[in-house]
Amino acid sequence: MPTITDVAQTAGVSKNTVSRYLNNRGYMSEKTKAAIQAAIEELHYQPNQIARSLYTSKTSLVGLVIPDVEHPFFSTITARIEDALDTRGYKMILCNTMHSSQKERKYIDMLTANKVDGIIIGSHSVDINYSDINAPIVALDRNLADDIPVVASDHVQGGEIAAQAFIDRGCHKVVQLVASGQVKTPSNMRHEIFAKRMREHGITCITQELQLNQFEFSTYLNTADEILNSYPGLDGVFSADPVAAAIQRQALARGMQVPDDLFIFGYDGTFLAQAVFPPLLTVAQSYDLLARTVVDVLMKRIDGDQLESLSYVIPMGVNVSL
Amino acid sequence: MPTITDVAQTAGVSKNTVSRYLNNRGYMSEKTKAAIQAAIEELHYQPNQIARSLYTSKTSLVGLVIPDVEHPFFSTITARIEDALDTRGYKMILCNTMHSSQKERKYIDMLTANKVDGIIIGSHSVDINYSDINAPIVALDRNLADDIPVVASDHVQGGEIAAQAFIDRGCHKVVQLVASGQVKTPSNMRHEIFAKRMREHGITCITQELQLNQFEFSTYLNTADEILNSYPGLDGVFSADPVAAAIQRQALARGMQVPDDLFIFGYDGTFLAQAVFPPLLTVAQSYDLLARTVVDVLMKRIDGDQLESLSYVIPMGVNVSL
Repeated sequence: MPTITDVAQTAGVSKNTVSRYLNNRGYMSEKTKAAIQAAIEELHYQPNQIARSLYTSKTSLVGLVIPDVEHPFFSTITARIEDALDTRGYKMILCNTMHSSQKERKYIDMLTANKVDGIIIGSHSVDINYSDINAPIVALDRNLADDIPVVASDHVQGGEIAAQAFIDRGCHKVVQLVASGQVKTPSNMRHEIFAKRMREHGITCITQELQLNQFEFSTYLNTADEILNSYPGLDGVFSADPVAAAIQRQALARGMQVPDDLFIFGYDGTFLAQAVFPPLLTVAQSYDLLARTVVDVLMKRIDGDQLESLSYVIPMGVNVSL
Repeated sequence: MPTITDVAQTAGVSKNTVSRYLNNRGYMSEKTKAAIQAAIEELHYQPNQIARSLYTSKTSLVGLVIPDVEHPFFSTITARIEDALDTRGYKMILCNTMHSSQKERKYIDMLTANKVDGIIIGSHSVDINYSDINAPIVALDRNLADDIPVVASDHVQGGEIAAQAFIDRGCHKVVQLVASGQVKTPSNMRHEIFAKRMREHGITCITQELQLNQFEFSTYLNTADEILNSYPGLDGVFSADPVAAAIQRQALARGMQVPDDLFIFGYDGTFLAQAVFPPLLTVAQSYDLLARTVVDVLMKRIDGDQLESLSYVIPMGVNVSL
């Protein structure tokens, strides 16, 4: 295994200079940096990460806390965040809380014990006091505490796009499915604007809450049946892609025509919208931009830089009309 | 912050005993262990993980290398592996290679540099010589090298279940879609047995390879169109759930009846099989058992225990007939 001495010799600099380079301390010319980097790559030098961690107090690890990676929104954003972290030299520890606030708490404890440099939180446990945490955290589509920065899609724009589709379609009675009221998320804004627009156009809008942290697909099928049984004359449903797919499946199973008998509009723009037939109309989130922004904001917090804002709003992607 | 001395006092043992407990060294009675654990919990003691890592050479981190977490098979198994690792006190670093063997190589370098205790590899980069790696690795559904243990589903059983469905249905001409020949995976066994059974029953069986590391859903739609265009008289298709869903969507879009005009049978038993209409017939993998076994085998390798076998075959789950 090559040592730091080998790197110094190959680069034609002192060991101390290589050490400063590795730990990003003090001034160094771009030429020197390039020479050291070239030597590191030529020799395949691997600094001992654990020993460096003690010295720099950096682990180059970031935790991503989400409720369920099987849910298409979370699997898509997880892939993009992992990629964005990789380009910044960070590895991602995945914490799939699976409805367990105990697991979420463990991750926050890891942060406090300096085992990760920062955490991105996309879940929401009602019994955690997030404002007590004095460490680099960024919230993904969640309002955790007043002083924790939030990165989220422009859900007002998303709600407007969806509302316009129901208005254009000429619907009379629609249901929108919303997250449990216990989850504090900016994505609720899409439902407020949607209900407002429906009211303005004289369309009956029923808002129904999903259960907290319920991500099993079979529960969506049950929800679909309940809705189809409960609201005679229903001609439209607005919800996230997986629930929209479940409603479409159960409507088709009853012999209903989609969209003639029931207009279904999804949200998220995941691959699932393309997998079903007829393909779901849906509003896509801008996953790459969302992922890059949440990582950029976290890097600023880790580096101790001042944030310009505590709220970052990402424009929706194209309205996927397949 | 409580110290090791506080834990020792509360538990009524020496500092040295607490240290031995934390590092799992030497004999200790169950009573002493319980007293120390109770004190740790009572005081919310957090050992400094980085300092302990240097001493124990353990990071309690395991890498999971997969091609694409957006693919339903991988998102499902990722959730279960994360859970199985969590119960063993390990955190999971997710590496989503996204078709990049360079990224896979980086993870293997991390292992060599003692930054993770072990790696589970569920991807396959053709330009990596896995047998050179002298460290705890377990392959998930991949044949990486002769001396690397493999955990995989019983794909012969899976292929038999699928074949029987096509025979019972009375199909005459079927296509099966298989992974690129460059991927060395035990799951190819399902295709060998499937083709054999089709031959035995006089059913024409066309085997078509998918491209290497192609996981975008839009490419599955293209593949579906190619197949529906290329084989007149086709009355059956066998493939993994996402491709099966794509074929069903494109068949329905052409006005074909499923299963009357085309019998489609999936593989994996992910939520996607339930999301489409008609729901996909599919063979489910036993995700929990698969995840627990791959983690158990890795733990044995990390602890330096002798393995009974280099191949672990997990029975398929129930045949999901929705």
